[in-house]
Amino acid sequence: MSKPLILVTNDDGIQAPGLAMLSGIMRDYGRVIVIAPQDPMSGMSHAVTVKVPLRIKTLIKEEGFEMYSCNGTPVDAVKLGQKVILRHKPDLVVAGINHGSNSAINILYSGTMAAVIEATIEGIPAVGFSLTDYSPQADFSACAKYVKVIVEKVMKQGLPAATCLNVNIPDVAAEEIRGIKICKQGRGTWDEEFDERKDPRNRDYYWLTGLFKTYENGHDTDVWALSNKYVSVVPVHLDFTNHQAIAEIKKWNLHVE
Amino acid sequence: MSKPLILVTNDDGIQAPGLAMLSGIMRDYGRVIVIAPQDPMSGMSHAVTVKVPLRIKTLIKEEGFEMYSCNGTPVDAVKLGQKVILRHKPDLVVAGINHGSNSAINILYSGTMAAVIEATIEGIPAVGFSLTDYSPQADFSACAKYVKVIVEKVMKQGLPAATCLNVNIPDVAAEEIRGIKICKQGRGTWDEEFDERKDPRNRDYYWLTGLFKTYENGHDTDVWALSNKYVSVVPVHLDFTNHQAIAEIKKWNLHVE
Repeated sequence: MSKPLILVTNDDGIQAPGLAMLSGIMRDYGRVIVIAPQDPMSGMSHAVTVKVPLRIKTLIKEEGFEMYSCNGTPVDAVKLGQKVILRHKPDLVVAGINHGSNSAINILYSGTMAAVIEATIEGIPAVGFSLTDYSPQADFSACAKYVKVIVEKVMKQGLPAATCLNVNIPDVAAEEIRGIKICKQGRGTWDEEFDERKDPRNRDYYWLTGLFKTYENGHDTDVWALSNKYVSVVPVHLDFTNHQAIAEIKKWNLHVE
Repeated sequence: MSKPLILVTNDDGIQAPGLAMLSGIMRDYGRVIVIAPQDPMSGMSHAVTVKVPLRIKTLIKEEGFEMYSCNGTPVDAVKLGQKVILRHKPDLVVAGINHGSNSAINILYSGTMAAVIEATIEGIPAVGFSLTDYSPQADFSACAKYVKVIVEKVMKQGLPAATCLNVNIPDVAAEEIRGIKICKQGRGTWDEEFDERKDPRNRDYYWLTGLFKTYENGHDTDVWALSNKYVSVVPVHLDFTNHQAIAEIKKWNLHVE
């Protein structure tokens, strides 16, 4: 039986330590193809590149381990990896380890989780890993054993249909982590401000800044789990429909004369 | 009582006919602030701009109608409109009318629906409108009365908590439209290929191409409604958790020795 084929990507870019950590771990589980954006792509969400042509750069091509960069987004990377490099579907897609939390609504802005969701659309089992430390020097050493236990389980059991996992790891010493919690996505928002400046020609420009604010603190949310030193695992699906609201809106009896 | 304040945006850019159509309609309902990307931003999803500073250009500033362009994404436009131009929340955000369908999984790639979802995160009632015709010369004339009936209802009734509407209008003559269906998001995917080319220096490059393929044809989906000449209205929420999968994954009993 041939070894499983594992595609690894991220949104922090090909040079991110979190990607090196994750692709190193995955070598224990199969043939690894790394394809990631050449530049950091945080906050790129599910964007795809349609205005400029995509290019791929081969960095490493060894038996069992290949590494490529591309000029696209994380979602482009998954598409290129599957449709240009492999020419078929990998057995597993993992993304990360992200430098920074992708808990709560951050899943929506995250390029890392977008890559995972893209794989899920394609029917490929997929898991995203994030460490709640945004710094490039983040210490990923506590992550390895959690990545392993989750990947092993997913490779053995599979995942529920059209569902991927959003795994966040708290930024604390390995011995302080209290375990793994299966959770729902917590509610929250970014309390944002624009840092307003003037350029040397006296024209205004703006930088987005902000702090995440949580709205609920139920023990069943990823936000609670992380702030209580648990690894959070949220099963994420592709259906954004608010099914409960359908009946309510049907009552509006919308029609045009 | 002051008139409602309505923010209008899109992802096809400030010059798109669909935006002009929608902002024109909205003038009947309140003070209108249009802020949209200066260039087309289709496929930008929920991306935010963090690498380059954002800039805003004032195009029109009249009593009751203002128009701005920005160098950001649709999500940036909603944030800038709210936090820099208005300095408070508008009463309603509408986006579109999109040139092309945002039904099924396309909601995930769409900058138009991302703008609507961003407003929803901020607690602002929001509706996205799309016409299932991708051409810049799309005929939006059938859309107006559907936009009106939906906007009037949303302004009167409000929306369920943390829920927005994804409205798609079929590209058929007004008299052929059979009505409005409240639906769930249909399942489907893009059957994609990369168009592979060589540049004058003999280096490979790739353009993303593809056709949407539907997986289900239930009469309760937006895909069915549109192909049967109904306007589809899908209530969309912000929770991506697959709640049913939580119990299943809890049974895995994930733990690290």
